[in-house]
This record gives sequence, C-alpha cells and structure tokens, in this order.
Amino acid sequence: MSNPTIDKYESEVRGYCRTFTKTWDTSEGAWLTDTDGEKYLDFFAGAGVLNYGHNHPALRKPLLEYIERGGITHSLDMYSAPKERFLETFHRVLLEPRKMEYRVQFPGPTGTNAVEAAMKLARKVTKRSNMVFFTNAFHGMTMGSLAVTGNEGKRHSAAVPLNYASAMPFDGYLGEGVDTLDYFEKSLEDRGSGLEMPAAVILETVQAEGGVNVARREWVERLGRICKKHGILFIIDDIQVGCGRTGHFFSFEGWDVDPDIICLSKSLSAYGLPFAVVLLKAEHDIWGPGEHNGTFRGHNLAFITAAAALEHFWRDDSFASEVRRKGEIVRERFEAIAKAHPELKAHVRGRGFIWGLASPHHGLADLFSEEAFKHGLVIEGAGINDNVVKFLAPLVIEEADLLKGLDILDEVAGTVAKRLADRNVA
Amino acid sequence: MSNPTIDKYESEVRGYCRTFTKTWDTSEGAWLTDTDGEKYLDFFAGAGVLNYGHNHPALRKPLLEYIERGGITHSLDMYSAPKERFLETFHRVLLEPRKMEYRVQFPGPTGTNAVEAAMKLARKVTKRSNMVFFTNAFHGMTMGSLAVTGNEGKRHSAAVPLNYASAMPFDGYLGEGVDTLDYFEKSLEDRGSGLEMPAAVILETVQAEGGVNVARREWVERLGRICKKHGILFIIDDIQVGCGRTGHFFSFEGWDVDPDIICLSKSLSAYGLPFAVVLLKAEHDIWGPGEHNGTFRGHNLAFITAAAALEHFWRDDSFASEVRRKGEIVRERFEAIAKAHPELKAHVRGRGFIWGLASPHHGLADLFSEEAFKHGLVIEGAGINDNVVKFLAPLVIEEADLLKGLDILDEVAGTVAKRLADRNVA
Amino acid sequence: MSNPTIDKYESEVRGYCRTFTKTWDTSEGAWLTDTDGEKYLDFFAGAGVLNYGHNHPALRKPLLEYIERGGITHSLDMYSAPKERFLETFHRVLLEPRKMEYRVQFPGPTGTNAVEAAMKLARKVTKRSNMVFFTNAFHGMTMGSLAVTGNEGKRHSAAVPLNYASAMPFDGYLGEGVDTLDYFEKSLEDRGSGLEMPAAVILETVQAEGGVNVARREWVERLGRICKKHGILFIIDDIQVGCGRTGHFFSFEGWDVDPDIICLSKSLSAYGLPFAVVLLKAEHDIWGPGEHNGTFRGHNLAFITAAAALEHFWRDDSFASEVRRKGEIVRERFEAIAKAHPELKAHVRGRGFIWGLASPHHGLADLFSEEAFKHGLVIEGAGINDNVVKFLAPLVIEEADLLKGLDILDEVAGTVAKRLADRNVA
Amino acid sequence: MSNPTIDKYESEVRGYCRTFTKTWDTSEGAWLTDTDGEKYLDFFAGAGVLNYGHNHPALRKPLLEYIERGGITHSLDMYSAPKERFLETFHRVLLEPRKMEYRVQFPGPTGTNAVEAAMKLARKVTKRSNMVFFTNAFHGMTMGSLAVTGNEGKRHSAAVPLNYASAMPFDGYLGEGVDTLDYFEKSLEDRGSGLEMPAAVILETVQAEGGVNVARREWVERLGRICKKHGILFIIDDIQVGCGRTGHFFSFEGWDVDPDIICLSKSLSAYGLPFAVVLLKAEHDIWGPGEHNGTFRGHNLAFITAAAALEHFWRDDSFASEVRRKGEIVRERFEAIAKAHPELKAHVRGRGFIWGLASPHHGLADLFSEEAFKHGLVIEGAGINDNVVKFLAPLVIEEADLLKGLDILDEVAGTVAKRLADRNVA
Repeated sequence: MSNPTIDKYESEVRGYCRTFTKTWDTSEGAWLTDTDGEKYLDFFAGAGVLNYGHNHPALRKPLLEYIERGGITHSLDMYSAPKERFLETFHRVLLEPRKMEYRVQFPGPTGTNAVEAAMKLARKVTKRSNMVFFTNAFHGMTMGSLAVTGNEGKRHSAAVPLNYASAMPFDGYLGEGVDTLDYFEKSLEDRGSGLEMPAAVILETVQAEGGVNVARREWVERLGRICKKHGILFIIDDIQVGCGRTGHFFSFEGWDVDPDIICLSKSLSAYGLPFAVVLLKAEHDIWGPGEHNGTFRGHNLAFITAAAALEHFWRDDSFASEVRRKGEIVRERFEAIAKAHPELKAHVRGRGFIWGLASPHHGLADLFSEEAFKHGLVIEGAGINDNVVKFLAPLVIEEADLLKGLDILDEVAGTVAKRLADRNVA
Repeated sequence: MSNPTIDKYESEVRGYCRTFTKTWDTSEGAWLTDTDGEKYLDFFAGAGVLNYGHNHPALRKPLLEYIERGGITHSLDMYSAPKERFLETFHRVLLEPRKMEYRVQFPGPTGTNAVEAAMKLARKVTKRSNMVFFTNAFHGMTMGSLAVTGNEGKRHSAAVPLNYASAMPFDGYLGEGVDTLDYFEKSLEDRGSGLEMPAAVILETVQAEGGVNVARREWVERLGRICKKHGILFIIDDIQVGCGRTGHFFSFEGWDVDPDIICLSKSLSAYGLPFAVVLLKAEHDIWGPGEHNGTFRGHNLAFITAAAALEHFWRDDSFASEVRRKGEIVRERFEAIAKAHPELKAHVRGRGFIWGLASPHHGLADLFSEEAFKHGLVIEGAGINDNVVKFLAPLVIEEADLLKGLDILDEVAGTVAKRLADRNVA
Repeated sequence: MSNPTIDKYESEVRGYCRTFTKTWDTSEGAWLTDTDGEKYLDFFAGAGVLNYGHNHPALRKPLLEYIERGGITHSLDMYSAPKERFLETFHRVLLEPRKMEYRVQFPGPTGTNAVEAAMKLARKVTKRSNMVFFTNAFHGMTMGSLAVTGNEGKRHSAAVPLNYASAMPFDGYLGEGVDTLDYFEKSLEDRGSGLEMPAAVILETVQAEGGVNVARREWVERLGRICKKHGILFIIDDIQVGCGRTGHFFSFEGWDVDPDIICLSKSLSAYGLPFAVVLLKAEHDIWGPGEHNGTFRGHNLAFITAAAALEHFWRDDSFASEVRRKGEIVRERFEAIAKAHPELKAHVRGRGFIWGLASPHHGLADLFSEEAFKHGLVIEGAGINDNVVKFLAPLVIEEADLLKGLDILDEVAGTVAKRLADRNVA
Repeated sequence: MSNPTIDKYESEVRGYCRTFTKTWDTSEGAWLTDTDGEKYLDFFAGAGVLNYGHNHPALRKPLLEYIERGGITHSLDMYSAPKERFLETFHRVLLEPRKMEYRVQFPGPTGTNAVEAAMKLARKVTKRSNMVFFTNAFHGMTMGSLAVTGNEGKRHSAAVPLNYASAMPFDGYLGEGVDTLDYFEKSLEDRGSGLEMPAAVILETVQAEGGVNVARREWVERLGRICKKHGILFIIDDIQVGCGRTGHFFSFEGWDVDPDIICLSKSLSAYGLPFAVVLLKAEHDIWGPGEHNGTFRGHNLAFITAAAALEHFWRDDSFASEVRRKGEIVRERFEAIAKAHPELKAHVRGRGFIWGLASPHHGLADLFSEEAFKHGLVIEGAGINDNVVKFLAPLVIEEADLLKGLDILDEVAGTVAKRLADRNVA
C-alpha cells in the first residue's frame, strides 16, 4: 500500500515511505496508528528524535497551554519568556549537576545547522581550515556538514568536491590490535604527513547512521588528550546519541573528556519539534552578534517542550538508570538472536539504548525492515552497506512492548536467515 | 532593559535582542506583548516569517485540534495524513490556478536547507559546479548557501574561502543606463570570460536583507531567457518575498518567468513553525531516495498550519489585492517621509508590502530601529551598511495599526534627521 | 607532410606541429629552415620567446664560450658567477635607469612557475586568498595559473573546479562608453558585492593569447590606483609582452603605474632557453629561504644569454625606437589589409610590435595560418574563437623581411576573404 | 663568505647559498670550482639533476656542435630534428628493451609541470577529482603539485587551503607489523570511509626530499594491484630517483608494476638543462591538441643532450651495474658510520645510489652539511626535521672520489656526534 497523492506530488527524494508504506495518522509513546486504525510498534523513533516517544502527555500539556494562551511562537533571537525558562532549566538540571560550563547557541533548528555553526566557530577560533572527521561519520547534508560525512552516496549528492576536511580511521577501523589514533597522532606530530593541522576534530561517540559503531571510552579520552595537546578543538556531535540515548544525557558522561563544543538536536525538543543547540566553552565564544544566524533559531514551542522534558526526565538518575536496565535486555536478546541464527553471521554492538545487529551481508537490514514491517514493527537499518539492523526504540517504551518487539525481531531473524540459506543453496 | 538570564547563558552570537530589549511573552496579529504587559507594534514580522501575523486564530485552531487528538508530530519522510493534505492543498489552491507544475521536496525545515538542496540538485542535473548569484544576495548561513551570499561579514563567518560560485551585478548595480545582464550574457557567450558555465542562477526578485533592492520585471524575464538559452537552471529564492509579500503568492507571478526551482520557507508554515520546501520541475526530479534528507523534513504541525493558511488566504485574490492596496499606502507615506526630511537623503524602493527607505548614511537604519523601539515600534534595517529602513509588517495588519506605525516612523524620521543635522553642524 | 616518428611516439597533446607541418632543423634571425632545406619566415617568434630572433650571434658567442670553458650549468640557488653577472646587469641596465626598485626571485624557468610564485607571495603578504584576473586572461597551465586564466578549454583541462579567483571585465569588454573598472571599484567598495577582497590583481597590459586585447594607459593607471587604495597587490604579467615587445622593455614603461610584482619569462633568456623571474618590491620580500623553489631555478646558460642581451640591446633606446618604428609599418599595413578586404570584417589592434587582425569570423585565424604556411610564412592565431591573426615577428626582423611577410599576409587575406565570400554565396 | 651582489639583489627566498656559501665558476664530473679556484666534491648533484655529473664531455660535445651549426633552439611543439631523434632513441634504448609502451608528453621543462600534467590527465581520464599521495611526499611547488606534497612548510607557502587530495601512510609509516596499504584498501572498499575514490595515486618509490624513505617492492606491487582493481591510475613520480639513481633507469625496474603514468625530469636532460616528460599509456592519451602546454615544452638543447646520454650510458647494463656496485660501498660505509657513532642514533636507508643517514635529532643534517662544507664536501639534508643526511653523488663519480667523500663524512660524523654529546652534557 502506498499513498497516491503523496507519490504524485512529492519529489523522488522521499525515502522512508518506500519501506514503511502506511500513512500515519496519530501516534503515542512507542505506537504509530495509520489512517486505517492499524497500530505499529516503533523501534525507529524518528531516527533518534523521539527518545521520549510520540506526543508524551507531560510535554503535550504545557505545549497546548502555551499555544492556547497566545504565547509568542516565533521570535528569532529576541528575548522571550520560554527561551529564558529553557536556558535556566538547561543549566540547573543538566549542566550544573555535571559540572559542565557551556554557553548555548541557537542555530537553525536542525542538526546540520548546529554542525555548520560548530565548524565555523572552530575555524574562526583556531584560524585553521581543516576539519578531521572519522570513517563512517554522518554529520548532515548541507555543504559544510557533508564534507565531514563519510558516506559516499551522500557526499556525491553535493555534486562538487568537498573540501577542507580529512578522514581518519574510527576506533576499531583497522581491526583489533591497532589503535587507530596512532595514525592520527603521528600525522599531527610529523609535519610532513600531509595532514593539515585541523581546527577541530568532530566525533560521534557512537556512529548511528554509520552502522552503530561504538568508540571505546579509552579511545575517546585519548582523542581528547591529543586535541588538547595540539590546540585542536574537540567537537562532540551528540545529535543522535545524546539526550539519553546511551543511558546518560550526554554520551560521554562520566568519562574524562571535556569537549570544546557539543552539538545537540533531534530529541532535544523532546516532542519532535525542530530544535538544535551548540554548546560552546565561554573562551571560544568569539561570535559577533548575528555572525551566524537562522530564521527559526528562536523556536518557542520547542523551548517549552524541551524545558518540560528536562524537568520531567532529568532531575534525577531514575529515568536514565531505567534506560540502562532496559538496554541490557536488548543486548541480551540481540546476542541470543545472533547466536540462534548463525547464517546471519551477525554480531551485536551498541551502548545504552542503541543496538546494532551487524552482518557482513549487504542489504541484510533492508530485509529485516521489510519483514518486520509486515509484523507491525518499524525498525531501520544502518551502515554503508545496509548491513546493520539498528534498534532505536523510544527510551520510554514499556517493557512489555519492548519484549513484544524483540520477539518479532527474533521471528524476523529466522525468516531472513532462512532466505539467506535458501539463496546459498540455490 | 535586558534579560540577565539569557545574557548570561546564551552565546554572544545573539543579535536582535540587543536592539529590541524586551522579553516577549505573548503575541497576536501585529502586536507583541512583553513580560510587563507592554505592547509593541510589529513592522518586522520575524524577518518575513509572520506574513499572517502572530498566532492567527484561523491557524491556531486546527493546530490545537491536531495536537489534542494526538496527531503524529514527527514522521520524517514517511507518509502522514497532514502531508497528504498539505500537498493536495498546495497543488489545488496554489499551483493549478497559476498553471505551475512542480514536484515538492521537503528539505530540513529552514530556508538555508532549501537553498542547499536546490544547489545540489542543480549541480546534479547539469553536471556543472558553478553557481551564479548576485551582488548583495542573501541565501543562508550554511556553507553552500553562504557561497552565494554577498555580505562579506557573513561570508567571513565561514572562516574558509567559499568556492564554486560567481557574483554578477544585480539589476541597477551599475547605475541607470547599464543593463547589468549585458555583462552576464557576454560572459556566457565569450568562453574566454573566465566565468565557468554555471549550473544555475539563484535570484531573489527583491533582495530583502541586501537592502530592499528590487529587480525589474523586464530584467528578471531577460535573465530567465538567458538561462533557458544556455541550459542554466533558474532558481528563484522566494523565501523572504514569497508567500504573499509582494502582493502575490509568488514574487514573479504574472511575469513571463518559468523558474526551474523555487525555494520557499519563512511564512510558508504561516504560524512561525520551521518549514521549507523546494519546488522542482518534474524533469529535474532525478533525486535518488533519501539522497538529500534532514531529520525534521516531515514536520506535521507545519503541514497543518500551512494547509490551513492556503485555504484561508489564497482561495481567491481578495487577500492579495488588499495587501497591494495597503502597500500603496506605505509607499506614499515613505515617499512623503523622504521628501519631508531631505537630510536623510533617502529614496524609497520596494514592491507590494516590502518597502525600504534607503539612505547613503551608514547606520541610519540602526538609528531608526532604536528610536522607533522607544516609541513602541519594532522595525529592522537592511543593506550592507545598515542604511536601509526595512518595512516588513504582517500582511494582515489592520489599516489603523499600519497608519499608527507609519506615524511613528514619520516622527522617528524627524528625530533622526535632526540628529544627522546636529552631527554635521558639530 | 608530417613527421611519422614524432606522430607515433608523442602524445596527442602536440599542437602547433599540426598546422606547421615541417620538421625544423636550423634557424637564424627571423628564418626557420626545415630538414629539406626550405626556409620559412617567422612571424610567430615562439609565441613571444624569440624577440631577438633565433640564435642571435651576439648571444650565441658568449653561450658557446661559457659551455666550452666548463662553466657550471646547473647550480640551483647556490651562488654562481653568471647569476651574479645577470643580477648586476639587470639592475644596472634595466632597473636603475627606469628608477625601478625590485628584488629578483628565480622560480622554475617557465612563465607559469613565475605566476604561481607571484600568486603565492601576494596571498602570503596580504593574508587574503582571492585573486582578481580579467576576461580572456592567460597566465599559464598549472593549477594556480589556470585559476586566473579565462579560456574555458584550458580551464577545463584541470578537470576539477578552479578556486580562489574572480574574473573582472578587461578594458573595453562592455563596449565603448563603459569603463569596466567602475564595476570592479564598486564591487570593492560595496562589501555586499560578493567579491572577496583580493590579495592581488593580475594583469596582462596586452592580452596576447586572449586576442591581442590592448588595455589603455588610463585604464591601467586607474587600476593601479584602485589597488593601492584597497591594499591589493598589483601584479603585471609581462611574460609575453615584456622584453621589448611593446616597443619598451616593460609594457607599462612611462606610465604612472607601480606594480608590486612583475613576472617575466619567454624572451628573457633571449635565446629560447627556459628562464623566468619574479620581480618584487623589497617590502613584500617576506619569503622564507626555499619557501618557493624549483629544481631548475638557477639556469646558468640562461643567465649568460640574458645578461648578454641586456648589454647588447638595452643600454640605450635605439633598439626600442627601431622596434616602434617598424611597428608602425605593421599597423599601417594591417589597417590597409582590413580595409582592402571588407569581407573579413576585421579591425586592427595592438601596440609596439604585437598586432592583431580581429574578425568576428570564428576560425578565421586558422585559415590565415594554414594559407600563410603554404606561402612560407609562420603566423599564429589568437582569441577564444581563433578569430584574431596575431603578428608577433622577432623584434630584430630586417625591414625587407618584414615587408615580405606583410605582402604574403596581404595575399593570404585575399584568398581567405574569397573563401568567406564563396561560403556565403554557397 | 657570501656574495654581496647576489645577496643584495636576489629575493630572501634564496636557500642553498646560505649553506654552501661559495660562488661557483666551473664544474666537471663530481667537482665544483669556485671563483677562487677552490674545488669542492659534490655529493648533492643538483638535488638529483646531475646523475651524470657536471658537464659530461660525451654530452657537451654534441651540445656545442648543435649550437655552433645553428640548430633550432626553441620550437614549442612543432616538429624538430632533435625531438625526432630523442623520441626514437628513447623508445629504442629505453622502452623497447624493457617492454614498456608509453607515449611521451612534453610539458613545461620542470618536474612540477610534469606532475601537474599527470594529475590533469588522470582526472580527465577517470572523471574523478581526488588524488591520493603519501605522507612525506614531495611532488613540486605549483598549486597542483603542492596539494600532493606532505611538507607543511611547503604547503603553507600556497597561503590558501589545498584541495582535491588525500594523504595515505607511506610504507612503514605505522611501524613494523602494520602494512599501511591495509588502511588504503579498506578505505577504498568501504564506501563510508570518507576517502573520495581517487583519480590516481602518485608515488615516489623512494622519497628523497621526504627523508630517503624507501618503499619495499612488495608494497609497491600491492599498491599497483589495488589501483588496477579500483580503476585508479598509478602515477610514479621518478623525477628524483629515476634516470639511474636506484641502479636502474626506472626505480621500479624488474618489479611487477605497470604504472599508467610516469614523470621524469631532473637528470633526464643529463646536462642540467631544464627538461621533463610525462610517459602515458596510449589508452590514456585523450589529450586534445594543446590542451596542456607550456612555452618551453620543445627544448631542443635538452633533446640533444638527453638523446646523447641514452646512447652513451644506457645501451647496456654496464653503467647501471657499476652504479649498483658503488652503491653497496656507500651503504657499507654509512652503516659503519652509524655504528661507530651511536650518539647519532642513526640508521641507514636507501637503494642504489641514494642513501640516508637518518637520526631522531632534529637538524642533524644541517650540522652535517655545514661541517662537511668546511671540509670541501657538498651534501644536503632531507626529512621534515632536517634529520636525514642525504647522499646523492653523481652516478659517474670515480671510486676514489667517492671514498674520499665518505672519509670526510666519517670525520664529520665524529665532529657532529661530539657536539651532540657535549650538548647533552651541558
């Protein structure tokens, strides 16, 4: 089934609707309902936007109240009451307890706008042009962010060569026994290496789009030390795995890492509303007024829901610890699935509440997505070869629903494994 | 007065709050109310986002209903009921009556994301890399859009050289008697000109940020013909002056112009919600699925309000003709102001409901903004030298409010003129 | 007739041998002799390398003596006796009498290496990246020089987009009545123009390859003043029209122009030996040792012949004034030819001893070259459309030979004109 | 001692004359004579230009004869008798016996011009823009070649960011036990790596400027196979270590390597005359006529001496085998020196007749050069930290002179070692 009106009028660029072919009407928590009233379980969570599920009542209520009372919706970067409330809450609830000190910049309300702002700032601060990114990184689709994205197909969408950026191998890229930072560090110290001294390194601690590649704590900490030593700014792009996805608000919480700049978006508004921030150390806050801007940089509805989510979920560790507990369930079931279906040649990787079932079979994740959708489950793939099934359910999912979805996945794994086996026989 | 909390926590990049120092609480139509209950008249309209004013009741109602009933908020580019409705309405109300045929692409929900998508597509279609833009153009702050923006300060925010783009003189740039397209056309026909044959030309028919520079109809039509002749795609960036700002939905309506790509954003959601589309001819729709994407590309709340606005304002010409009528009032008053205060050396330019009072005095618009704000009026400046007072009130403004604001401007003009005169004496 | 051995072994990139199909053996003055002993008159002069003709005896003698006595041939940028002699002579004979003060840099021994060095230096001095060049400029075929070259075919040989350079219209480009520097100056003063403030402007006062386009003295002087005002370095590329080609050693001699950097090559060695220099004001000499280099930057044989030529030809004005006198002969005959053959729709342009017969007929110059070669005359075309017959005989040509060649050209013009007329009839 | 005239008039960019402070007058074989008649032994050989020594009589004779009889000196890419002779000899003596099939392109007569031509061709052939080069590579100083050069100081001389090129680790860069091609191959096969699929790989089999880094045969062969598999052109830059330097004419002779493009220059003319060629497979010869050119691309004097050298030295293996024999002497003495002076912490690397004494002490090579010069020996350093003493004597050096120079080096090593020891004590 598809939607003929949308197919007729929307560009060929539309993507997810080709796999998930229902037309959504309402949604709540981890459930989507289509226009026929059928319900689907959501292990996709808007690619990381819906950590708190769909339309959470604790957020909907203040949102409705705000709109009803005529609260200002759009105010650019003028002062507004919701912005004040958001900033105050963000500092009180998040930063202060973690002893983090950052100024907040509001770029255009999308992840790529935040990344672009971060890159501009790093270059301005250091007066260097090069950016170091990592193999299989994904940072966005505008020209600046694309230059630090690994995926060839996405890079080629630029249709021009992308400049001022150098790829380095992510943790584990050269197999066990090789610390890939040896190459980075040597390239920095050997001024004949051809690596332009970078303005910044930009890192996802877990590469979600890139295939659920998890950087080890020691590796990230060493990366931070290397940056510090060479006056390179350290940017952590926590757009997809921040906001609690790893079982902590920030993906690097508790580690000995002190990023210069942090990008947040996706689940930051907590309600699916476009929103993004750049956190920057005060010492780097050399922006001139309006030097980077964006029409929708003061999105008051998002301030409202974002502040409400901070109050509701993050005033203590109970929510996060529950996420970590449920994450262990996922890990165990994923490992059981991998073990039960050796034809998949799969192994499990992830952290907190993002997990991947990674296989050498190209396109395996597509098979999973299609098959799971038939069973009422929405789940996406990742990795350059669509070979990683990516678990990304809302953090708020009820345990019963979680188990139900995992059961479906188990069954799907069997079907896919059988199909692979049949293929090999044939 | 300022806001100490925001000043403490937000980055130095904040801009408008330095001029408009009140903290906004609620807003309606052309009026802003601050946290002390004071009301301000809005001749700024969120830099073009609020053509229908703040929180229009005809839009607020369906928005509230949708949220209350649990309509899906975030759905990426999956099918959703609001998307279907928006697309159907957009075609029925806007495109069909104008005999325009375009596919709709939903990029990330900001203007710059739309421009980036348009540029990528034009390069992909033509297999050329260069983009032609015009002196004093403004197209956005991400790396691709910045490359086609004229403003040096904004360009330098990139902190690296911007490539793959060539500036050409806008209409009137070389004074009367010189048709600036002569240079462009000769540069295209003389393959020794050093102008790389461009993938596309990107044009604002009225440069709003650039200083309310108005391109004449004949000039735009000739530009279209030149593009057609050379297989160059013609992109009209109607982000700021589309959605009715010129007295028609599209700024080039009724002209003999057939752009290959049109970018819309700002007032498209009609309610201040982040939203953007790229309209593209079917023949150029060679995108692969997901080749350009963005996390917030399916913003259902914006679909709801945008569709409601199309139904409410655009089913016939009555709204637009009223805008044109009121625009004439502005033009006449602006000309009277210019005439009454010769010290300003000002002249008037604009179209529809965007008007500029342009002066050779650098910073004149800042003086206006500051002085007007004291009188309860919010109005912004434009132009590279902050020398153009930019009128951009909501299209829905009541005539009485419009006249009130113009009276304030008249008084402000006197004050500013006097200050200039005093300065010259001193 | 062609050369089967060369055709078999040399790359398809070979060019002139396709038009001038004889295999040269010896040469002297303005005469080439092929392997069959046939003689050809040279109005081409190695594209400007052979201003003093082939193998001039006053230069050959010291060259032979130097080689015979075992003078060092290759010494990089170590000290050598010939380098000392060259530098001393260059200052005594050329610079001092003209009250010019420049340091001499020896880049790799070709024009493009000199241009690359000049561009690097200008960027280093100004800390800006952009270079302004002019429509139909030609500055060389390496990546830096190509970026400031207008010719599309040559630019495309790079096979990647060329960056950090902006084209501006050359003198006369927009027809009479338009001073093209108005656009350049306005673009500099209006910081919304999209023209990145350039490090330097690079100019050929006569564009030879570009079609014998002559910049007027007033225009060049104004350009110099604009550069000075904005702290832009002014680079004059005198590679093709320096060394006496315009009837003075430097093409801008006697003008109120004070370039920051001058590039010389081609006829500088005076004997066809590879050689190039960059002249730079002492205040810009911020090079570090070896910061720009090149293996053949100390070509002692060229030092020998270059110094000998300076002594022989440039100790007083007699040689130059004779060049100017003979140049007038060429101009008159060219104008007579143009007048006598209206079918060519030709007009004459040039200065000193470089003259062009410019026609709107694309490929006209090719017809001239082919036809002239049948009559024993070697002459080349220029212009993006091969529509300009380019006179570039050795400055030392005997008057009788000059007249002989002009007679041939006159006859050729008749043949070509007839062919054009026949074509129009048919 | 220095040269006041040269110091006064030449730019600060002059380099070698600061270390080797004598003014050279004549030279022969491996000996330089200064203007005071003092003789210096040359272990530097013009940075690889003088493989056959200075002014070899077997080359001087035909050179003098050619000039005396009035042979054409400069003929661009027209046919000439010397060019025919060179091409025929090059094929008969070099290519045919080695079963190599290449077309010959004559770019401007310097190494960097050859590299630029090779890069342009590779991009044109593959329609890709990226170039892969290796850590510590050196390919030239013009903008294209600089982009594939590792040395930071040289890169920064461009004063703009260098694009379209990616560094990969050279053989041995990550220490023993890591085959650096694993990273390159994985980056090619993983299309999420962020490495743009390159047009070509450019390699020096021995990095001379980079510090006498020797790539192992197996590594180079594997690199060739990787290129073949991915349709990447393989460019070998044999400019410094071709023409016999490794004990074979080409540095990769006898290996299972089949480069698509080979660059030669430096010793190719055999007499210190500027000259360069690009060898390209016929299948890649898609150049248009004149698509890449250069004023001095037909340097007949170089054709004469180059052809004479091929006849004299390369008609059988006797010259090369003698080079290899003498190379062993150097290796043994270098190893003895390293062993005898443990304070240097030096190890020996090289091949054929290029050897390096590599030390972790930054600037060690400078100390060697200065000290050796006092003893009448000219020898240069290499490596990003000037930490490698680079032996590069003419291949034709007499054994007695070779031993004499090695004795000097041994003594110098003692002096330098003592200085290091004193420094550590102090």
